[in-house]
Amino acid sequence: MKLLKNIWYVAAWSHEIGESLTTRDLLGKPMLFYRKRDGTPVAMIDRCPHRFAPLSMGKRVGDNVECGYHGLQFDCSGACTLNPHGDGRIPQTARVQTFPVVDRHGLIWLWAGDPARADSGLIPDFEHLVSPHLKTIGDQMIQNANYELVVDNLMDLSHVNYLHAPYQQVDDFLRAKHDVMQDGGTLESRRTVASTRAPQSFQPFLADPDAPVEYWLNIRWHAPGCCVLETGVVPVGEPREKGLVRLGTHIVTPVTTSYSRYVYASSRNYRLDDPLADDETKRWQQMGFHEQDKPMIEAVQTRMGDGDLLSMRPILLATDGAAIRARRLLAAMIEEEARINEPAPAALA
Amino acid sequence: MKLLKNIWYVAAWSHEIGESLTTRDLLGKPMLFYRKRDGTPVAMIDRCPHRFAPLSMGKRVGDNVECGYHGLQFDCSGACTLNPHGDGRIPQTARVQTFPVVDRHGLIWLWAGDPARADSGLIPDFEHLVSPHLKTIGDQMIQNANYELVVDNLMDLSHVNYLHAPYQQVDDFLRAKHDVMQDGGTLESRRTVASTRAPQSFQPFLADPDAPVEYWLNIRWHAPGCCVLETGVVPVGEPREKGLVRLGTHIVTPVTTSYSRYVYASSRNYRLDDPLADDETKRWQQMGFHEQDKPMIEAVQTRMGDGDLLSMRPILLATDGAAIRARRLLAAMIEEEARINEPAPAALA
Amino acid sequence: MKLLKNIWYVAAWSHEIGESLTTRDLLGKPMLFYRKRDGTPVAMIDRCPHRFAPLSMGKRVGDNVECGYHGLQFDCSGACTLNPHGDGRIPQTARVQTFPVVDRHGLIWLWAGDPARADSGLIPDFEHLVSPHLKTIGDQMIQNANYELVVDNLMDLSHVNYLHAPYQQVDDFLRAKHDVMQDGGTLESRRTVASTRAPQSFQPFLADPDAPVEYWLNIRWHAPGCCVLETGVVPVGEPREKGLVRLGTHIVTPVTTSYSRYVYASSRNYRLDDPLADDETKRWQQMGFHEQDKPMIEAVQTRMGDGDLLSMRPILLATDGAAIRARRLLAAMIEEEARINEPAPAALA
Repeated sequence: MKLLKNIWYVAAWSHEIGESLTTRDLLGKPMLFYRKRDGTPVAMIDRCPHRFAPLSMGKRVGDNVECGYHGLQFDCSGACTLNPHGDGRIPQTARVQTFPVVDRHGLIWLWAGDPARADSGLIPDFEHLVSPHLKTIGDQMIQNANYELVVDNLMDLSHVNYLHAPYQQVDDFLRAKHDVMQDGGTLESRRTVASTRAPQSFQPFLADPDAPVEYWLNIRWHAPGCCVLETGVVPVGEPREKGLVRLGTHIVTPVTTSYSRYVYASSRNYRLDDPLADDETKRWQQMGFHEQDKPMIEAVQTRMGDGDLLSMRPILLATDGAAIRARRLLAAMIEEEARINEPAPAALA
Repeated sequence: MKLLKNIWYVAAWSHEIGESLTTRDLLGKPMLFYRKRDGTPVAMIDRCPHRFAPLSMGKRVGDNVECGYHGLQFDCSGACTLNPHGDGRIPQTARVQTFPVVDRHGLIWLWAGDPARADSGLIPDFEHLVSPHLKTIGDQMIQNANYELVVDNLMDLSHVNYLHAPYQQVDDFLRAKHDVMQDGGTLESRRTVASTRAPQSFQPFLADPDAPVEYWLNIRWHAPGCCVLETGVVPVGEPREKGLVRLGTHIVTPVTTSYSRYVYASSRNYRLDDPLADDETKRWQQMGFHEQDKPMIEAVQTRMGDGDLLSMRPILLATDGAAIRARRLLAAMIEEEARINEPAPAALA
Repeated sequence: MKLLKNIWYVAAWSHEIGESLTTRDLLGKPMLFYRKRDGTPVAMIDRCPHRFAPLSMGKRVGDNVECGYHGLQFDCSGACTLNPHGDGRIPQTARVQTFPVVDRHGLIWLWAGDPARADSGLIPDFEHLVSPHLKTIGDQMIQNANYELVVDNLMDLSHVNYLHAPYQQVDDFLRAKHDVMQDGGTLESRRTVASTRAPQSFQPFLADPDAPVEYWLNIRWHAPGCCVLETGVVPVGEPREKGLVRLGTHIVTPVTTSYSRYVYASSRNYRLDDPLADDETKRWQQMGFHEQDKPMIEAVQTRMGDGDLLSMRPILLATDGAAIRARRLLAAMIEEEARINEPAPAALA
């Protein structure tokens, strides 16, 4: 699995990582997570370099980890700090690979590449997840599919009119104005329907559910799998600032070529304290993500087998623009990264 | 899996295919089946050419199918008839592969090769399945084994004296007269015991179960996996026309190299309206096919692993004649088909 | 899987093999075991050379085996003795591979190599298993791991202070005197703590559980996977002959590269008739072997994937000496065996 390395991936929700040793497969590797006594999160490969036991089967000793098989201890930098055997000398190679991690916006971000380049300023903006002006409801799930198929699903939102009908269906949506913009390593897809009936998912929260609204659906993608989806409705003629808006968080992290972890949330700007609105969001996430998207994405993976999407020559339609651009942009970034890491040919050295 | 292509395969019993979208893996491919409003059966690859979603997760729109992911529609010829996105233009390559299918003798027959050569006159004769002069009881099952191992089981019926003893056992059967005849792409194996005690499976239906009978067992094979098994007993000296006869239908269709679908039935010329005779047939099919043949054939597959039978150098006995001839005939047909489809070498072009 | 061939492997406990046909995968092969009417055990490949049916699905006919599919019979030498079909001639190649087996010390030993070299004098000494002066409690289990990982676990007993703490933990054990000796194809690792508190596992059986004892732990390895582990405690100053001693039997037999069978027992020289001591042993075997060793060894296998231990460059510590020597000795024996079996190069012939 060729992956982009010098980038931040989401490893978990912040609340999932605590003092106890937690293991999670990510990016094709078994990883160990925990927090130091001061709360700082730590990530390392979950495998002792001595006999390859999972360190997660050991225990915490202060901020260090002790292997449960033969007792070697490692600190948070991955260095071995104790060899209880024989003369106790510590081989120089006794190290576990660690990863830079940052706890931000309620998420644990992991840098998969060169630690020297791990700039937390590169973490995309998910501030809305912790905004006091929004009410956020989220969770996570497994997708038995390649992470790019999950991104495809997000970047081509025309599927809401079929897979998520009638709940998220919007009349005149498929022929609506649709722009795709690129800004460096991010893409944004914007759709607007100037006047339509609000989708069912907004109707309970509108003064007049049947009155015509302007409807918009914008999704912003950060490589390789972090998306923010803004959905809004506002009575026709009113400014968007007065509308009902939901910011959807959709972050997919690859595990294997056909297995991914998917973190999602919905942050709304209306009825912040209304438990009925919370329930409506949870019901939608269960139905839409678990019962509609997941079976479809996984069925697509099954039908594709080991095939690569573009090599399988899919028919491409107008609606595929954003998803295909995201795929090509990501492929170019991975290729560029591999090129830079290659040693210069001898003739040029 | 190298398969014969220009041949009819059985996809299902006719009653299994109705108006609703039905998916079934056959010949290494996911297939979609349904009937048009006029009852005509339709078969196509169960995969949308746009994003590879299973069409079976979509829905019927008249005689067409609408993909459940992004709403493309296809007609029964596999042509895309609706693109709901953007300007609605339909790419020329927007097609699903379809297969000629014929509903005959209570079975759905599927032509796997060049549609132009799909001559329904080539469907082998299974008229007995719908004959009013016979009573037919049948069903189907999965065999976790290569389809040729299932054919081997049928083409070497000497196993009835061991695997199906005592119910189908016949004294003097193994040393009995045994002929194998070939007629084009079909083989027939005929065994006769001039005088013996009828097997238990016939005894309840004979005036004198202990009187000596002539017993015969003929099996006709049509490539690649369609067999008709005629079993009969008649009091010694009487003509066969006066005997009790069962025509067994045994049709195996490959799915993968080690997974097959097996359709079976028994059509008898006696006690047509006797529910006890029906029960006797069902009991035998459950015991003989599900509890005796299936575990044995699947155990053979397990013991063979990925091996090819003839490459594994089995000991060949007199009784293997028909099965080995069927294997060699099928291999030659597949090779011939591949040869014809190959482009002529450049020097000859 | 490259295995040592000209060596005795343990196939089963003696009591597991009786008159009925018993199948067990060992050394990458399906094997059939049973006892002749005179009690002699028999081992052969569990696969008929005719159509590759498992012979274990057939039946005993005297001391012979009849295949359940088409009735061929084989004697205990593997020769076909009956072909019930056609003229009954028996092809010369109609043979099943058999293996020399010996019933000794309560175990069934199987010789995997050249039968002409199967010298029962080469069976390692496990006489203690049937000694009237000891009380033996044993059983067996599956390890979803390569057999060499199970041997590693045994040959590096430093893990008792971590994985088996506190029950088998011994103070000052890790820094204790430790010798590794080689004698031909066997290795012995000896550790002694001159004065310590007895491990919990011995305490209930000592007059004064808190009095200082000499503690020793010696393990002898016979290639490829037979170990005898002697553990003892004696009050400081007393001769070892007066001590409490347990002889542990630990025998691992490879099945596949990541699946093994593990036979274990504990033979003690104290409280021979005390059911509480029996219970203590059983409790320890359940806790130590099934709930501590097995999950750890299997997790190591998972973390290693298809990797070869030494190729993965583990950090090697003082405590790894015996295990690594056992691995290297075994690799050399396998290589030597392969070298001898190779035909001489033509130039030298």
